[in-house]
Amino acid sequence: MPDITVSVLQLQRYICTSLQAVGLPAADALTVAQLMAEADLQGSDGHGVIRLPQYSRRILAGGVNTQPNIRIEQERAATALLHGDNGMGHLVMKRATELAIQKARHCGMAWVGSHFSNHAGPASLYARMALEHDMIGLYFAVGNANHLPPWGGLDMLLSTNPIAAAIPAAEESPIVLDMATTVAAYGKVKAKAQRGEMMPEGWMMDRQGRPLLDPKRSEEGFLLPIGGYKGYGLSLVVGLLAGTLNGAAMGKDVIDFNHDDNSVTNTGQAIAILDPAAFGDVNHFKRQVDVLIRDIRGSERIPGVERIWLPGEQSQARRSAYLRDGIPIPAGLLQTLDKLAEQLKVPALRDTTP
Amino acid sequence: MPDITVSVLQLQRYICTSLQAVGLPAADALTVAQLMAEADLQGSDGHGVIRLPQYSRRILAGGVNTQPNIRIEQERAATALLHGDNGMGHLVMKRATELAIQKARHCGMAWVGSHFSNHAGPASLYARMALEHDMIGLYFAVGNANHLPPWGGLDMLLSTNPIAAAIPAAEESPIVLDMATTVAAYGKVKAKAQRGEMMPEGWMMDRQGRPLLDPKRSEEGFLLPIGGYKGYGLSLVVGLLAGTLNGAAMGKDVIDFNHDDNSVTNTGQAIAILDPAAFGDVNHFKRQVDVLIRDIRGSERIPGVERIWLPGEQSQARRSAYLRDGIPIPAGLLQTLDKLAEQLKVPALRDTTP
Repeated sequence: MPDITVSVLQLQRYICTSLQAVGLPAADALTVAQLMAEADLQGSDGHGVIRLPQYSRRILAGGVNTQPNIRIEQERAATALLHGDNGMGHLVMKRATELAIQKARHCGMAWVGSHFSNHAGPASLYARMALEHDMIGLYFAVGNANHLPPWGGLDMLLSTNPIAAAIPAAEESPIVLDMATTVAAYGKVKAKAQRGEMMPEGWMMDRQGRPLLDPKRSEEGFLLPIGGYKGYGLSLVVGLLAGTLNGAAMGKDVIDFNHDDNSVTNTGQAIAILDPAAFGDVNHFKRQVDVLIRDIRGSERIPGVERIWLPGEQSQARRSAYLRDGIPIPAGLLQTLDKLAEQLKVPALRDTTP
Repeated sequence: MPDITVSVLQLQRYICTSLQAVGLPAADALTVAQLMAEADLQGSDGHGVIRLPQYSRRILAGGVNTQPNIRIEQERAATALLHGDNGMGHLVMKRATELAIQKARHCGMAWVGSHFSNHAGPASLYARMALEHDMIGLYFAVGNANHLPPWGGLDMLLSTNPIAAAIPAAEESPIVLDMATTVAAYGKVKAKAQRGEMMPEGWMMDRQGRPLLDPKRSEEGFLLPIGGYKGYGLSLVVGLLAGTLNGAAMGKDVIDFNHDDNSVTNTGQAIAILDPAAFGDVNHFKRQVDVLIRDIRGSERIPGVERIWLPGEQSQARRSAYLRDGIPIPAGLLQTLDKLAEQLKVPALRDTTP
């Protein structure tokens, strides 16, 4: 079976129909579907439709609340804590981001955290929501499975706890950073295993602290943090800000949602929004970002390097190409999605009209 | 000449007298001296009294304004931009942090940026100021010399742009992260050169992209970012938040203050303060931080690892030891400081009474 390509609307429709079939109200299904399809569109394919079977399983097992009362539990002028009521993380963090943008408009900046949320897709989705308001978005999350021990340790108390930042430019594409605090995200390890390739040194280590190169043995080892003890510290701080501060799961309380479909994950996330207008002229700021982008792009290069990329630039290029040519769905994924469609009694992805 | 140890008060007095001798008003000299001595006390010895000769040279050359009008230039409920008027960075960022704490008490969080500031010592100094108010501090700065090219590039457009985070605990010591976004800070390279040692692979590369191991050849190469392109992205984002957003120098506008004593650096920094009370019960939060710290410390260890450290724990241990036994001043540094004392006609460090 060859790969197919689908339009973003077709993908949205398919996801939306499937989510309704497992019990999400129409409006919520549409919101989640739009965000999931956007993840695929920007090339964050580990966080898009590939997650649909897992989300569906979790919803059907009662692990996610399909009728959540997402509410503000604590509030000050520039902050809020949202109680996600165990709803889909996408719904919780979209609401959190909208609230933070509104607060930042008045206060100059805002920070909204969540607890009793769930996996919400790629970090950059929410940071990027700031851009259309000419604002800066910063996003922090506790990952939904611990694959990282403290530096020198063996107990998996930390996750890949990602950070995203979105910064608007004038004529250039915005700068969008979206990174795990580990050298490799766990999805990359799985991809290497599927392709039968070895991992480079530095991605994982075994319980003796030796490099682990065979991705098929990944369960015997750990991911490595970026910059050694620095990445360990960064992952810990992100977890404290996105998890502990919000009364969300962190450390040994994190539920491995790959192996557990019904425990409440109590996922914690945080979005911070900064309004550049509170610091000076927005257009001047955006033009200065352009200058920096052009200086970086125009830098002399290491012999053999063809191009210098800005964070988010490759994702932006992919987004344009996928909008034009469609989003590729690999054959293996399509098979899984076809099986899901059969199970949920909804039209298969290829039979979904946009 | 053997190393000596000095008390923190003795060190403060010496720095304060020297800064007054080069023209700082008494109150400002005391503020800067206290912060610089605190840097040595916590073991950030690359940012303490070792900087005094350079600061003095810069002040005498007219590169720093000794009578600055440090003022709020832009303000909203949760934000401010301080104009440092080219004063000592310590004065600017102490004021910024105090303002942010005050704003966070009302708004739940606050973010204060600076421009026309200067080098302000270790990032953790300012993040830590939040702790006595049971708040969380985050600090970002544009480094004062570019040693980092964009990923794949050769133009040194980025600096070690550090991040600090300070998070209060209940019975345990607070978590204090203070890290450059490069694998090694430039000070560590200089220290290797002084000791005649080679650098490990991964610290620096040469203009062909090959590992650079000889620290004496450091001028021929570049620092490497943590996690490769991730650290490049992180350094860029920190620079945008601490520099560009504040109208401060970033990219090619950064002045290398190791080789320039009189240009205005227009240094940018930012402090963010979060009040945990805006998200729930502060004592509960601090106890949860304790739980996490103890789980991490009690983790099973890689064979051969004696102890798992939390970020800031070694610095805290050093602080206690130095308070008890005195701060060690290496012979080489003492010689430099003696020469400075002679030049400024102030008592030498060893002759300074606390």
